[in-house]
Amino acid sequence: MKSETIELFAEPTLVVEDVEISGHIIDSLILPKVLDLITTRGGSFRIKQITIGQARNDPSFALVEVQAHSADELADILKQIGDHGAVPTVSHDCHLEAADMDAAFPEGFYSTTNQKTEVRIAGKWIEVADQEMDCGLVISPDRTTARCLPMVDVRRGDLMVVGHAGVRVFPPERTAQRHLFEFMGSSVSTEKPKAVAIREIARELDRNRAAGGRTLLVGGPAIVHTGSAAHVCRLIREGYVDVLFAGNALATHDIEQALFGTSLGVQVNQGNVVEAGHEHHLRAINRIRRAGGIRRAVEDGVLTSGIMYECVRNDVDFLLAGSIRDDGPLPDVITDVLEAQRQMRERVRDVTFCLMIATALHSIAVGNLLPAWVKVVCADINPSTVIKLSDRGSFQTVGLVTDVEPFLRALVAELASMPTEPTL
Amino acid sequence: MKSETIELFAEPTLVVEDVEISGHIIDSLILPKVLDLITTRGGSFRIKQITIGQARNDPSFALVEVQAHSADELADILKQIGDHGAVPTVSHDCHLEAADMDAAFPEGFYSTTNQKTEVRIAGKWIEVADQEMDCGLVISPDRTTARCLPMVDVRRGDLMVVGHAGVRVFPPERTAQRHLFEFMGSSVSTEKPKAVAIREIARELDRNRAAGGRTLLVGGPAIVHTGSAAHVCRLIREGYVDVLFAGNALATHDIEQALFGTSLGVQVNQGNVVEAGHEHHLRAINRIRRAGGIRRAVEDGVLTSGIMYECVRNDVDFLLAGSIRDDGPLPDVITDVLEAQRQMRERVRDVTFCLMIATALHSIAVGNLLPAWVKVVCADINPSTVIKLSDRGSFQTVGLVTDVEPFLRALVAELASMPTEPTL
Amino acid sequence: MKSETIELFAEPTLVVEDVEISGHIIDSLILPKVLDLITTRGGSFRIKQITIGQARNDPSFALVEVQAHSADELADILKQIGDHGAVPTVSHDCHLEAADMDAAFPEGFYSTTNQKTEVRIAGKWIEVADQEMDCGLVISPDRTTARCLPMVDVRRGDLMVVGHAGVRVFPPERTAQRHLFEFMGSSVSTEKPKAVAIREIARELDRNRAAGGRTLLVGGPAIVHTGSAAHVCRLIREGYVDVLFAGNALATHDIEQALFGTSLGVQVNQGNVVEAGHEHHLRAINRIRRAGGIRRAVEDGVLTSGIMYECVRNDVDFLLAGSIRDDGPLPDVITDVLEAQRQMRERVRDVTFCLMIATALHSIAVGNLLPAWVKVVCADINPSTVIKLSDRGSFQTVGLVTDVEPFLRALVAELASMPTEPTL
Amino acid sequence: MKSETIELFAEPTLVVEDVEISGHIIDSLILPKVLDLITTRGGSFRIKQITIGQARNDPSFALVEVQAHSADELADILKQIGDHGAVPTVSHDCHLEAADMDAAFPEGFYSTTNQKTEVRIAGKWIEVADQEMDCGLVISPDRTTARCLPMVDVRRGDLMVVGHAGVRVFPPERTAQRHLFEFMGSSVSTEKPKAVAIREIARELDRNRAAGGRTLLVGGPAIVHTGSAAHVCRLIREGYVDVLFAGNALATHDIEQALFGTSLGVQVNQGNVVEAGHEHHLRAINRIRRAGGIRRAVEDGVLTSGIMYECVRNDVDFLLAGSIRDDGPLPDVITDVLEAQRQMRERVRDVTFCLMIATALHSIAVGNLLPAWVKVVCADINPSTVIKLSDRGSFQTVGLVTDVEPFLRALVAELASMPTEPTL
Repeated sequence: MKSETIELFAEPTLVVEDVEISGHIIDSLILPKVLDLITTRGGSFRIKQITIGQARNDPSFALVEVQAHSADELADILKQIGDHGAVPTVSHDCHLEAADMDAAFPEGFYSTTNQKTEVRIAGKWIEVADQEMDCGLVISPDRTTARCLPMVDVRRGDLMVVGHAGVRVFPPERTAQRHLFEFMGSSVSTEKPKAVAIREIARELDRNRAAGGRTLLVGGPAIVHTGSAAHVCRLIREGYVDVLFAGNALATHDIEQALFGTSLGVQVNQGNVVEAGHEHHLRAINRIRRAGGIRRAVEDGVLTSGIMYECVRNDVDFLLAGSIRDDGPLPDVITDVLEAQRQMRERVRDVTFCLMIATALHSIAVGNLLPAWVKVVCADINPSTVIKLSDRGSFQTVGLVTDVEPFLRALVAELASMPTEPTL
Repeated sequence: MKSETIELFAEPTLVVEDVEISGHIIDSLILPKVLDLITTRGGSFRIKQITIGQARNDPSFALVEVQAHSADELADILKQIGDHGAVPTVSHDCHLEAADMDAAFPEGFYSTTNQKTEVRIAGKWIEVADQEMDCGLVISPDRTTARCLPMVDVRRGDLMVVGHAGVRVFPPERTAQRHLFEFMGSSVSTEKPKAVAIREIARELDRNRAAGGRTLLVGGPAIVHTGSAAHVCRLIREGYVDVLFAGNALATHDIEQALFGTSLGVQVNQGNVVEAGHEHHLRAINRIRRAGGIRRAVEDGVLTSGIMYECVRNDVDFLLAGSIRDDGPLPDVITDVLEAQRQMRERVRDVTFCLMIATALHSIAVGNLLPAWVKVVCADINPSTVIKLSDRGSFQTVGLVTDVEPFLRALVAELASMPTEPTL
Repeated sequence: MKSETIELFAEPTLVVEDVEISGHIIDSLILPKVLDLITTRGGSFRIKQITIGQARNDPSFALVEVQAHSADELADILKQIGDHGAVPTVSHDCHLEAADMDAAFPEGFYSTTNQKTEVRIAGKWIEVADQEMDCGLVISPDRTTARCLPMVDVRRGDLMVVGHAGVRVFPPERTAQRHLFEFMGSSVSTEKPKAVAIREIARELDRNRAAGGRTLLVGGPAIVHTGSAAHVCRLIREGYVDVLFAGNALATHDIEQALFGTSLGVQVNQGNVVEAGHEHHLRAINRIRRAGGIRRAVEDGVLTSGIMYECVRNDVDFLLAGSIRDDGPLPDVITDVLEAQRQMRERVRDVTFCLMIATALHSIAVGNLLPAWVKVVCADINPSTVIKLSDRGSFQTVGLVTDVEPFLRALVAELASMPTEPTL
Repeated sequence: MKSETIELFAEPTLVVEDVEISGHIIDSLILPKVLDLITTRGGSFRIKQITIGQARNDPSFALVEVQAHSADELADILKQIGDHGAVPTVSHDCHLEAADMDAAFPEGFYSTTNQKTEVRIAGKWIEVADQEMDCGLVISPDRTTARCLPMVDVRRGDLMVVGHAGVRVFPPERTAQRHLFEFMGSSVSTEKPKAVAIREIARELDRNRAAGGRTLLVGGPAIVHTGSAAHVCRLIREGYVDVLFAGNALATHDIEQALFGTSLGVQVNQGNVVEAGHEHHLRAINRIRRAGGIRRAVEDGVLTSGIMYECVRNDVDFLLAGSIRDDGPLPDVITDVLEAQRQMRERVRDVTFCLMIATALHSIAVGNLLPAWVKVVCADINPSTVIKLSDRGSFQTVGLVTDVEPFLRALVAELASMPTEPTL
């Protein structure tokens, strides 16, 4: 942290730059955060001007002189506070550097966040497309568009943004409107009024369907183990799910239940452990492999119920991503994780609401891909999954420590009692 | 454990005693357990006779010679295996010793289990009353009855059983009938079919009500925080709860909700945090203290809804036991824990079904008091509570890691759709 | 929340009051919090004057006009923001009301926080003694002193503060100094650098001992079950513990280990389950009851090792508080929870550091009694305990999800390698 | 389950087959399990002969007639009890069927367990190689050897075992010797004596190194986040780790720490959050990509410390398996999960001890690949990971709910104080 060296004789020469911050900078805690960052990174500041909005929703404005001990320190500070919307008053274009090799950024690359970002090229601010965290920023050859680019997709010669100059980030502002996504906040407490949360999620699903948005369901096998597959089937049939992301396990146990009535060998409807049942999931996979895949199994009448069946029947776009713990796997599973990421990336582009249920791996993977403004609900009985998701630090992510089956049952019941008309 | 000393020259003289074991000793794993105990305690055995039931439900019988290196070791082994139903073929009366002081047992006292127990007095086996673990056994002055006696209730001169002779314990046998209490077993997995479990609990509640049994609900404040009070109110009104055990917190937040609409300052119906709300629970307690207690508050119209209100209105016997984290407390709280235990003990005598929800302290306290044959369901989102309860090691205890609100909501819905007629 | 009614024709007449806030109101997020409270409670504001400290540690000042629709709403807002240090510029004395009955406050009583508080009497601000949350404020008959008073200790005629006028609260300010209590913050993540945390706790223990502070250890029985009693014994012998709060279980299993080598029947040094061991704890309690208590048992040579033994030998003040799940209990256990609270309250008055290990019940009980400025470390493998403690919302409380035995072992090792000299 | 149809007029004709079971069939609970399976699968039995070992370690023998209502039911029962070592007295060769397509088994394939298995070909029992659960059994073209074959590796024409005839499984027998792997059993309690467990694991590591066994470490990134990388480095340098399985995250954060001193942006040595630190892991990956991989980065002096560095320097065979949540990833990561499984499978063949730390995904993946007789210790602060591993149901798997850093610190200290000489 801060250097402990004491400068005895000389006042160090400071390098300075003015930045401006505007918006709900007090109400949204942006100004305190920026001032805090400056000092914790070794700098100091002088507030040259401040105008505080007279009402809670009035924007405020601050002009702050950032002081640092060296050009490097200043650059470092500007980079940090830039992520919170503090923009130098004298703007520069972003710096570009051509990639010198495939599948790696130039050293000093700009590392993206999941928040709305703009780059300045030829004096003009351009909005970045395909916003995603932990990427680089690539500029089109004609320098008119910018987008986020994963490291492995870099091609030698790509124009990459380096450094922090000429990039600005728009942190999310808390709105005055109070809703689920504010009340639940970053909390993972198990002792919140659950009925309210469930009702709000139902409303959000309904609103999203009515508005023509796309809802992504990310689910783990506990959905099937706990006997909740029927609830998900109903959500699919009623048009509440547009895309399904899952792994081999959810699809396998769903098909196991459809073919054998068990999930991991447990009879889902009666709760009995069927002793030979541990083989069922393998037999289910084998049968689908023999049939040539899930879609073919549905078409040929091999698979006649369950979540995967409903996806095929209701044109829900499903994607099964592989993992090293997969048995089989099902022939539909994408076994290369980079290819899976690519296909997930494409499909999340137009997602407007995301419900993550009972899967740490897939939830975190999808959380990495989504821009900060997509609303996300993550429900899991294991608090650690919920904590990890909530650490994304967006007001748009709600974590819910709950039990899958009764949660989904209640959600379906809330949707059934919703006053809205069915989808057109 | 086993002595490491090596006996060089002499075969040690063994002391022996024959024991017999009968019942489903193979199917119920009792024989292996007994043989295991003998050897792990340093002894050895010879199976003199064995008759194995020809069908799964036929009882078996074994006559086993227990061999030990000393009389002490033999007594120790006999004591251990006696808890699993292995009875010496030559029976002795139990040994009695008069308590030499109040509130303590004689050294060498027999320490009870929660399983059905008999003592032999004057050649006759007498069933022990008030069965409870971690007590002593007191014999009536006329030596015709026996019952479990907590340590603090000993009075000088009480006839206490010492040693293990003349005491026999009947371990529970697994029945062939498959039901919830078998299927859920001692498991705490979160990935079990929950709908089955909830349906079975509903059936059990219904059966118990129909059969005139008494259902005890043991509940924690998360019932109120999660917005589940209304579900419990409905269970009470419909006669599914005969006794309620809780602490100051459940009653306080229930009353807080009734008076202010909040639980720990959170608006239960809307989920908003009411900023001053942290004071509400204290104001609620104060108001009840001013009214002279819960019953008076209901009678005077101060308290007009909620769990405690329904208890008063529907003659549900409630008991609030104090703890050191209590604010206030409510005037109805029993602040002395021994007095609370005494009153709980009296009230569990005729309980036939017990539902424990979201409280570790009260669940464990009640678990300590109940005989092994009372069916218990413990539901908590925190696996550690469920694990502790399941460690009671009875086939009659079911642990369920679940979320209170959707769990209770589903339970009430199951009961509503039950085909049985209402209570007469 | 906010009224949805639209006022069509008339601008409602506003009632207003000026408040001032000073200190690190931006850096500490106090100003945003106050402005947020005003608007969420239905009011509005106008910032009449603001002076922002030019450097991070310079205090700032704001003069804010609070606007409300009614006197009641205004009083409500002033009460809320008063808890965050916003004081009306025109001050009033506090309002007093004599208690009209024993053991209850007058309606409208001022409900205390755990933060530094002052009341204004006869124009003078007086600091409140015995600061504790969820109490009332009682003024001495001569009106020169004020202190927190628990509800049950109210006596008819006591002068109680009602309403919020004339009371001001000093919220804790984050200091620029970076230490454990800042870095760990309110976080409960299991994935923090643990060595740093353990080293900082060791330093804090050492500093506290050297400075003549008093360290309170609050411990649960898992200390003994996990084989950590020896570590605690060492902390006691080396003067790192001045007071011990625990329940019957810690003392019982500690004595069980001293007498029988087991904890809940598990051999602590070898990990074997001793089959009859489940009786050991009851025999341990019985033996101490027969000896006349822990101190007598030590003096008479019945108890010769363990935590309780070391407490007696090293004059550590110990307090055992009862709970309804207690077996026995030991004769030293205070079975009335109100009496236990009273004695705990007396003993925490001069505590300057508090280490809570592996007990939810006792940790929360003690957390309720401590003022916000006492540093607290709560270590538990169960995240829910840590979350509950951290919800106290003080920068002084550090939660650590960790495993008791290796944690205490590492703590003792850190202390052993500390460069400081031993206590004088 | 059991058919509820009542057969009115005729005693159904039973089909029967004699099976024999030998070994510690009572002590190891095998006989009760077999009898239980017979009846729960709808059959009945008659014990024709039973010889019970006279001492605890003497083997027993039982000859049991299995009765079923149909040939199918009989086959089903024989299959189930065959997994527990009950072998028909009249043995048949196994049935073989040539695979009719690539990457799928014939319907009716024999599904393997992770226990020692033999197949009968031409009257001779042959031991199965590469034992692994959830595979098929393939016989060499010359019919002299058998091995487990994953579904995807099937090639058209492979001779696969179908049905259960001619296959026998040897369930693990509990040995009389009491050690860690017995005492810890399947338990996941957090309240076990941890020092004992850690000492036993240290002994096992030491024994394994001395005996020339191979130890596999499976680790997650929390090792680095919690500041435990140095402990693992020491284990590697001292020869306690022969193979490392991990994912992109462990290697990335280890390299991040080596290059930047942070893990996920947290300074591991001081616990400070470095604000820009969230970029460090991406810069670390990028730098390794630019260097051409981990080995090259070590050779070129780019990477000079940390776990991955020590692996390269000490010839520890490391394998990084990809997942969909990977950033980057590092160029050494195997991004195809089937390829990763293949390489893991090869490397576990000669592993004799496996330590799994703080990773659910990799632990379960490796657990799937290991035969039941390889000793496994799984340590995680999240009980759900430990529960999932323990469900493998082998006496060889020990689950430990503990905190990574203090656990590894204590383990290293135990090893340092071990009396054994260093590896030769």
